Amino acid sequence: MDEVTITVREARADDALEVMRLMAQIGSESTFLIMDERGMRLNEEQMRANLEGLAALENNVLLLALADEKAVGFFSVKASEMERVRHIGEFAIAVERDYWGFGIGPLLMEEGIEWAHANGVIRRLELTVQKRNARAVKLYERFGFKHEALMKRGAFAEGEFLDVHLMSMMID
Amino acid sequence: MDEVTITVREARADDALEVMRLMAQIGSESTFLIMDERGMRLNEEQMRANLEGLAALENNVLLLALADEKAVGFFSVKASEMERVRHIGEFAIAVERDYWGFGIGPLLMEEGIEWAHANGVIRRLELTVQKRNARAVKLYERFGFKHEALMKRGAFAEGEFLDVHLMSMMID
Repeated sequence: MDEVTITVREARADDALEVMRLMAQIGSESTFLIMDERGMRLNEEQMRANLEGLAALENNVLLLALADEKAVGFFSVKASEMERVRHIGEFAIAVERDYWGFGIGPLLMEEGIEWAHANGVIRRLELTVQKRNARAVKLYERFGFKHEALMKRGAFAEGEFLDVHLMSMMID
Repeated sequence: MDEVTITVREARADDALEVMRLMAQIGSESTFLIMDERGMRLNEEQMRANLEGLAALENNVLLLALADEKAVGFFSVKASEMERVRHIGEFAIAVERDYWGFGIGPLLMEEGIEWAHANGVIRRLELTVQKRNARAVKLYERFGFKHEALMKRGAFAEGEFLDVHLMSMMID
């Protein structure tokens, strides 16, 4: 791969098609994610509305890692609007396989955690990750996530039930 | 309270108004739930569509406990359509305060777990419950739920962060 410049920024409504392509690509490359090759199953109009909705919610975010113009990874935080749990951000991250090994994961982690600290509403970040995805588990540990549970049958892939870690980080 | 007959059955679209009333009532009575006094924030039409959608999903259910015609409690299971997690049912239960102590909770648990066993898709039931809600924790333990994690800041109520248990039961 030639040298590319990676930038990280919040997704906009105009990114709809590119986000759809990225999600479908990532979903097809790995059985580590909940999302499968059918991606998020939204059409372009729905995705635009989805991205606009996200931007309007102060405790939600979708950050994109861009290699020049192309989206190659994302960091997302989803949180409820319900008063009692609006401080809990469910976090997900993924990078397109062709772009593994260039530090895009750590870059997204850094920017995402910084976003959470600046956000003011989010006070707990949580994630689930398949136990067999050791590389991701290590990344999360490195950035300060703690193990809270090993969930039995937390996922099903390639014909079997898999253990899934629940990990969290307090944001203060 | 005079003697009433309690029946448990699946919610139908025509229950929309009654379900809205129940959810708002339960949400206002307790800070043990994620849902607050604003209930589910759906209007009647949306609730009808919601109940119709639920009925069409084989791994989701909303069971109502009815005192004569009045809905006084529910047992719900929500599960994703995504292949890798569609076997995971997120379960919730609540009973209106005036009807506590009549065994409606245990009745709903029994019927709900029976539903899960008969369902065929659900292979893991999971729930979250505030640690301070000892009565509910005991009920879940009695019906075979195991502790998987104590989630820090799993809820916020009355001005403070609360510990929340993650509990699960395998369905075989």
